Amino acid sequence: MEQKLNTLKERLADVLRVNQAVAVLSWDQQTYMPEGGTQDRGDHLATLSKLAHEMFTSDDVGRLFDDLKPYAEQLEPDSDDARLIAVTDRRYRKQTRVPSKWVAEYAQATAVAHQAWVEARHDSNFAHFQPNLERIIELRRQYADMFAPYEHVYDPLLDDFEPGMKTTEVQQIFGALRPQQVALIQAISQRPQIDDGFLLVHYDEQKQWDFGVEVVTRYGYDWKRGRQDRSPHPFTTSFGIGDVRITTRFDPLRIHTALFGTMHEAGHAMYEQGIDPALGRTPLADGASLGVHESQSRMWENLVGRSREFWSYFFPRFKEYFPGQVGNVDLETFYRAINKVEPSLIRVEADEATYNLHIMLRLELEIALMEGSLQASQLPEAWNTRFQEYLGITPPNDALGVLQDIHWSEGLFGYFPTYALGNLISLQLWEKINQDIPDLPDQICRGEFGALLGWLRENIHRHGAKYEPQDLVQRVTGSKINPEPYVRYLRSKFSEIYGL
Amino acid sequence: MEQKLNTLKERLADVLRVNQAVAVLSWDQQTYMPEGGTQDRGDHLATLSKLAHEMFTSDDVGRLFDDLKPYAEQLEPDSDDARLIAVTDRRYRKQTRVPSKWVAEYAQATAVAHQAWVEARHDSNFAHFQPNLERIIELRRQYADMFAPYEHVYDPLLDDFEPGMKTTEVQQIFGALRPQQVALIQAISQRPQIDDGFLLVHYDEQKQWDFGVEVVTRYGYDWKRGRQDRSPHPFTTSFGIGDVRITTRFDPLRIHTALFGTMHEAGHAMYEQGIDPALGRTPLADGASLGVHESQSRMWENLVGRSREFWSYFFPRFKEYFPGQVGNVDLETFYRAINKVEPSLIRVEADEATYNLHIMLRLELEIALMEGSLQASQLPEAWNTRFQEYLGITPPNDALGVLQDIHWSEGLFGYFPTYALGNLISLQLWEKINQDIPDLPDQICRGEFGALLGWLRENIHRHGAKYEPQDLVQRVTGSKINPEPYVRYLRSKFSEIYGL
Repeated sequence: MEQKLNTLKERLADVLRVNQAVAVLSWDQQTYMPEGGTQDRGDHLATLSKLAHEMFTSDDVGRLFDDLKPYAEQLEPDSDDARLIAVTDRRYRKQTRVPSKWVAEYAQATAVAHQAWVEARHDSNFAHFQPNLERIIELRRQYADMFAPYEHVYDPLLDDFEPGMKTTEVQQIFGALRPQQVALIQAISQRPQIDDGFLLVHYDEQKQWDFGVEVVTRYGYDWKRGRQDRSPHPFTTSFGIGDVRITTRFDPLRIHTALFGTMHEAGHAMYEQGIDPALGRTPLADGASLGVHESQSRMWENLVGRSREFWSYFFPRFKEYFPGQVGNVDLETFYRAINKVEPSLIRVEADEATYNLHIMLRLELEIALMEGSLQASQLPEAWNTRFQEYLGITPPNDALGVLQDIHWSEGLFGYFPTYALGNLISLQLWEKINQDIPDLPDQICRGEFGALLGWLRENIHRHGAKYEPQDLVQRVTGSKINPEPYVRYLRSKFSEIYGL
Repeated sequence: MEQKLNTLKERLADVLRVNQAVAVLSWDQQTYMPEGGTQDRGDHLATLSKLAHEMFTSDDVGRLFDDLKPYAEQLEPDSDDARLIAVTDRRYRKQTRVPSKWVAEYAQATAVAHQAWVEARHDSNFAHFQPNLERIIELRRQYADMFAPYEHVYDPLLDDFEPGMKTTEVQQIFGALRPQQVALIQAISQRPQIDDGFLLVHYDEQKQWDFGVEVVTRYGYDWKRGRQDRSPHPFTTSFGIGDVRITTRFDPLRIHTALFGTMHEAGHAMYEQGIDPALGRTPLADGASLGVHESQSRMWENLVGRSREFWSYFFPRFKEYFPGQVGNVDLETFYRAINKVEPSLIRVEADEATYNLHIMLRLELEIALMEGSLQASQLPEAWNTRFQEYLGITPPNDALGVLQDIHWSEGLFGYFPTYALGNLISLQLWEKINQDIPDLPDQICRGEFGALLGWLRENIHRHGAKYEPQDLVQRVTGSKINPEPYVRYLRSKFSEIYGL
């Protein structure tokens, strides 16, 4: 049996290495590849992805799982080996239910849809994208049906990103959250608005880079096992625990982009850097879910990076970098400016208090589309109606509304809720951390992040993908994912800032 | 049959894509990878290389060749399809003769030997490397014997880099060349030496970069299908015809390194960029051999880049970049300085007149080691004796002598002669080009390289790896590889420079 386990591990390691090669090729594509490489790179990625899929879903891997499952039941349930078999067997069962014919059709449909979306967004012409979206919804329904019976047609999609999570759970969580967030931003909208004009002037790009490096170095991002590059869409990518890279986008007239973007990506990256090296050659060298991953990025970006404590340490340094922009600004004015709440059209630029509402409306629309209670043709109107209801504004056109995100064009249904779940998880962890490290605020005021990072390593990072997200959150905080800590946080923070 | 051919092409395309992925991973390793990535990257490369090998040498690929060979004989012999089948079938027959047990032993032996060589060179202690070298020689003899019967035990090794070329051919060529090159540098050594001190002062790195970019842009290197990065050991790499990258090393106190290195790599890269797109998804999207590849790099580096014509155009620009260094230097003084001939210890820094002698002594030693007429233990003495004989100097230690090159530690026997063959081929082509483009010198004086590049594209580049090197040279110049044009070139150029 141990020999079979080793054989399985070798097979999984090969698949992992191919997938990490895909990540390198994709990183290069988004950072340095010359335009002439586009077509070849598409072929590289398609070939390697196909190989990884074939290697993982082969019959002899299935036989190894069949043989090993009784053995796994005798192991200590939380042991690396038991979890490796459980997690990868689950993935195997899921992936082998998907016929290769469907995979090919889906790849084809999303490639075409992506191009149509680019054009539709450019012209703000939803009708141009609509037939492609209809095709993707049809394919995604077929996908869900491969996993019938299910509680909800959306479950198999959500499960790809939040293993084990059910649609009804997310609906309950968001149902409790939404009215409280809507009420909060309505209250804020009655108060005098903050002036953040000094953030929207020219900030030298190299100095933005240098300040960001200083911050995430202090956070504990390990540069010997990573690096930073520029890319149009920031991301974090891992080629192994020893090489976890971040990218950043710089906007000279909007310093938020690089400043908080770098903190955000470093949060993702420190998660990957903190995985137990014993898991390094297995598919467990990954985050527990997209939601848990996002809890790490949002914690370092928002709970740390937008806190008064953080800036009481870093603002003097920031002033040294940018004396012309903030030399005469005091800490309190700066703190309020970076925490300005204002309903806006674009999700990726949304503030802490409004962000989740962007997600919730997307989730509701995705579920309705999958259920068939909403047709693709009705989507722009449904988007705009909900947007007005939740955020109090209506997009002037579809490019700034329903067409703004890439996800649906790539077939990514089930992905959006993970962003909001990440926010919620970050606060559940944060409350526990502050119990365990009572002087954390003082530490942050001194620019010390070692205890915080150590706590995250011990409780979250080292486990990699061993546990499903609800299980992990329960183990660490004593309860499943719930919105109350986040609501408490928003109310407390913004009541003080806006004098509610 | 056409369906089988298409199946073969798909299989070969998949192998090509995996090999190109290896190239991307290797490029990243040598340019941007953080040190923490070393171990994982080794695994990525090993896994993908193994996959590519397994995919290419599988039995069903062999059956496709068996089925397709009669079909290929009916095709026009120079057609892409006929050559694709012939070239790849030949590679298949060669690779499938190598047992995977040997491949594993060889990979293990070279990994250990490489590390031992690094240490041995650091300490200038050949004895530390000797047992590893003995093991590699033993494995390389075993490798040769897989292809018995052969004319010469060195043939199967040489054939890996110069397909179809025989050891006796190379020995004849080098035998005719060596005494003439030795006589030339002895004659030069009797003449007053050139002063090139102004080349050995500080040159700003960014300006070196900018001037190099200006030159190779003018040459015709296509930046939309390539890019330049820094690396400790310069190289060219192709991820497809649309993405052919160069790297450059910069030495602020030795401008030759980046100046001629950039031209050299651009020569390699323009070859790959010039391959017929119809070959793009096949293994024929490659150079004909290392020797033919080197003929391109050496042509742009030396025949163009070290010519009086080139500098009559570019020297005024060079002075604008570096007024402090060459503001008071005249063209003739500069031209003589960059063409200074001086026997030196290190191959990669050798001038045009001495370079081939470095190669010839290596080839003779490699052959003797393979034949068994020389033992590894005798290598340092044999190196030093020959070095004195050919170049008139004796290395002060083994680090600057027999241990200077990486090749043997990586098992690369048969590789060195391709460097000198490249020089010889470059002159055979150059004589033909100057017949076909009589005003080429005038064009170069005007900084015009379009006709030259066009000729190379038409006669060399577009064919990719369709033809074996001897065949290609014969087709283009009317004779097989021979040293006379190179000897004529050296005599003429250096007689004038040194007043012989």
